[in-house]
Amino acid sequence: MRLVPKRPRFSSIWVSRAAGRQTVQPLKASYTPLSPHKRLPFFLLPFLMASSAFAELRATGDLGVVIERETGSAIIVNTTRHKTLAKVEGLGDLSHASVVFSRDQRYAYVFGRDGGLSKIDLLQDKVEKRIVQAGNSIGGAISQDGKLIAVSNYTPGGVKIFAADTLEPVADIPARYADGKLSKVVGLTDAPGQRFVFSLWDAGEIWTADVRNPQQPVIQKYPNIGKEPYDALMAPDGHYYIAGLFGEPGLALLDLWQPEQGVKRILPDYGKHDEKLPVYKMPHLEGWAVTGDYLLAPAIGRHEVLVIDKKSWQLVKAIPVPGQPVFVMARPDARQVWVNFAFPDNNQLLVIDTKDLSLTKLLTPGKGVLHMEFTPRGEQVWVALRDDNQVVVYDTATLQEAARLPVQKPNGIFFTSRAHKIGL
Amino acid sequence: MRLVPKRPRFSSIWVSRAAGRQTVQPLKASYTPLSPHKRLPFFLLPFLMASSAFAELRATGDLGVVIERETGSAIIVNTTRHKTLAKVEGLGDLSHASVVFSRDQRYAYVFGRDGGLSKIDLLQDKVEKRIVQAGNSIGGAISQDGKLIAVSNYTPGGVKIFAADTLEPVADIPARYADGKLSKVVGLTDAPGQRFVFSLWDAGEIWTADVRNPQQPVIQKYPNIGKEPYDALMAPDGHYYIAGLFGEPGLALLDLWQPEQGVKRILPDYGKHDEKLPVYKMPHLEGWAVTGDYLLAPAIGRHEVLVIDKKSWQLVKAIPVPGQPVFVMARPDARQVWVNFAFPDNNQLLVIDTKDLSLTKLLTPGKGVLHMEFTPRGEQVWVALRDDNQVVVYDTATLQEAARLPVQKPNGIFFTSRAHKIGL
Repeated sequence: MRLVPKRPRFSSIWVSRAAGRQTVQPLKASYTPLSPHKRLPFFLLPFLMASSAFAELRATGDLGVVIERETGSAIIVNTTRHKTLAKVEGLGDLSHASVVFSRDQRYAYVFGRDGGLSKIDLLQDKVEKRIVQAGNSIGGAISQDGKLIAVSNYTPGGVKIFAADTLEPVADIPARYADGKLSKVVGLTDAPGQRFVFSLWDAGEIWTADVRNPQQPVIQKYPNIGKEPYDALMAPDGHYYIAGLFGEPGLALLDLWQPEQGVKRILPDYGKHDEKLPVYKMPHLEGWAVTGDYLLAPAIGRHEVLVIDKKSWQLVKAIPVPGQPVFVMARPDARQVWVNFAFPDNNQLLVIDTKDLSLTKLLTPGKGVLHMEFTPRGEQVWVALRDDNQVVVYDTATLQEAARLPVQKPNGIFFTSRAHKIGL
Repeated sequence: MRLVPKRPRFSSIWVSRAAGRQTVQPLKASYTPLSPHKRLPFFLLPFLMASSAFAELRATGDLGVVIERETGSAIIVNTTRHKTLAKVEGLGDLSHASVVFSRDQRYAYVFGRDGGLSKIDLLQDKVEKRIVQAGNSIGGAISQDGKLIAVSNYTPGGVKIFAADTLEPVADIPARYADGKLSKVVGLTDAPGQRFVFSLWDAGEIWTADVRNPQQPVIQKYPNIGKEPYDALMAPDGHYYIAGLFGEPGLALLDLWQPEQGVKRILPDYGKHDEKLPVYKMPHLEGWAVTGDYLLAPAIGRHEVLVIDKKSWQLVKAIPVPGQPVFVMARPDARQVWVNFAFPDNNQLLVIDTKDLSLTKLLTPGKGVLHMEFTPRGEQVWVALRDDNQVVVYDTATLQEAARLPVQKPNGIFFTSRAHKIGL
């Protein structure tokens, strides 16, 4: 028996299901309090409101969202000032959550475990709209033009597409396969050319959906890609889509520049792990690091980070690391790769120098290192410490702490710069 | 005699020097007009103002600035709605101009030809501050942490550094060389590790400035890099800095991951052009396209786009094109490269498919195709048509026009997504 949790992205244990309320609890306001001084005549109040509204002017380039897994809430942060701007509640079950951003970076779309899709207004610190679009959901993506939100669902298995502005349904793509059953869908990402790409867990297929006409998505199916694709990665330029296989070793590769060549199997030994090594947490594929000629990826079970040649898709090297790696993420300039680990080593954070693949430093930021997000130009990294109820910010050049913020059980950090990226 | 204009970036002819006024002329307001209806009691006005302020809420992820070269003005555009939001005037001589953005994407810093440095507030459609910091300036950059603005100057030759928030001077780096004279400075970019890199035209040197302590920049000088570096390119990951040489053929390469190896000469034949081929416009280095394994670069004088291997720095191929290329720019997913041309072919725009380096289409959008900017995820490209007083927007998948906007003599287009990029 393989000790692999089935869908363990941010954590393999699901604890809470928060209530569905849509409330807002501002933490620290950046503007002058509105309460008028008693000696001020009442008619001046609107003037104060007007000026406070202007004082509140907020640009969106340095904002982010940190998911609080157990309370179904998220905090809005400012990465320049290391500040929490507001808390937004009522986002449902966030035991697993992911976030994409609107083209203008005003809205964060939060995909919850319970099929909830919440649209947060980062300028007004509130839930603009929330729908529960399926019974059991795993993630989502935003189309290249920013007009469509796609959600990948377990129940009912398939992809649903919504208008990004209203969250009204636009298209439904049931993941129907051979015997008419619906497959769970995983590894959904956007791709250039107004497409979405995703994998069918039960069917062992990869599908692409061209949504240039959103009412009538054009589906291309790639069958027999391997057993039980469980997650996928899109290269940052949208060229390659790679699905990890749970049911057999190896990875399934689709070259989106040459889709007519079909899906091929690469790294046939990937995932072939020692039965005596229990896997405490399945690594994320979306956290793979693309650096120059190499792809750095977490081994499954083994205490290794694998270095893969991007041209030949051959293994170049296995770097020994002090635990089972989960996220292997490159700093935006690709000079550093940061690695976190599964339990019991989830208090550690390793920095690798990609110049020579040497280990730069092993940090111990706190308990339950679950996720990381680099600032857009890489000068800092924010790290979620679930069990310490904190986010810690590091300067990536000095590896010194720059800040700590209190956050309740943080399990995911997402910055608005994602709005401008391909393949998330 | 080589017919090469000395510093011909956006155009080799400088026409106007706009007055130094700092005025704002909103073109189309996205909010309700403020003028109160006559029947409304006056005390309601502030309420209206308050609500209009809220209605005006503007995110900054899909904004941009288009430079109007002859009127010393810029327009603020929204790339989602293809709309002009406002015109900002009083920016001085913009016959050559470049723009960087603050970390939060609220402010655009415009570097003008006259040494002017203007800070535009994209949320309030106004010039927040403007200084004339030198007599003759060529460009600028913003530090990795967003706190410092560096400007490269011809007169007096050197780099000046200012606080991004106040534009107060922080440091002065005179470009003093061998005989005590000051060199003109070109090719200034930011680099990871809170550094700036630039080239000294008269001295034939590359300098790096570590500004982690901004009051005391730590300078590293690389002498004898070749005669008259005239512009430079930073690789998008900040790994390589490449200066073009005006005084001799070839390019000067600095590997910022291994600066101890010094500067080496690459592509020794680059720039060795036929004396019978007049060069109507020196190509931009900053517009080089990095795509997978290749760098696509404009030949000088010849009607060719050069394909250079990024590993060996050898020429792979010269693609014949219908004019002297100026900008050779990659769509963000690197699948397409767009090329514009010098006079008399500056009514054309060529699209190259990087999959096989074939020519996809030759477009004729209008007169005076000066500059292009891709939307962050590459679905559209904005093209400046100086002599048609227009910006045209193309869908990059269909190559169909998506919009045209009136703009007075546009010569540069800059989107806020640049705030998140390295090496600009």
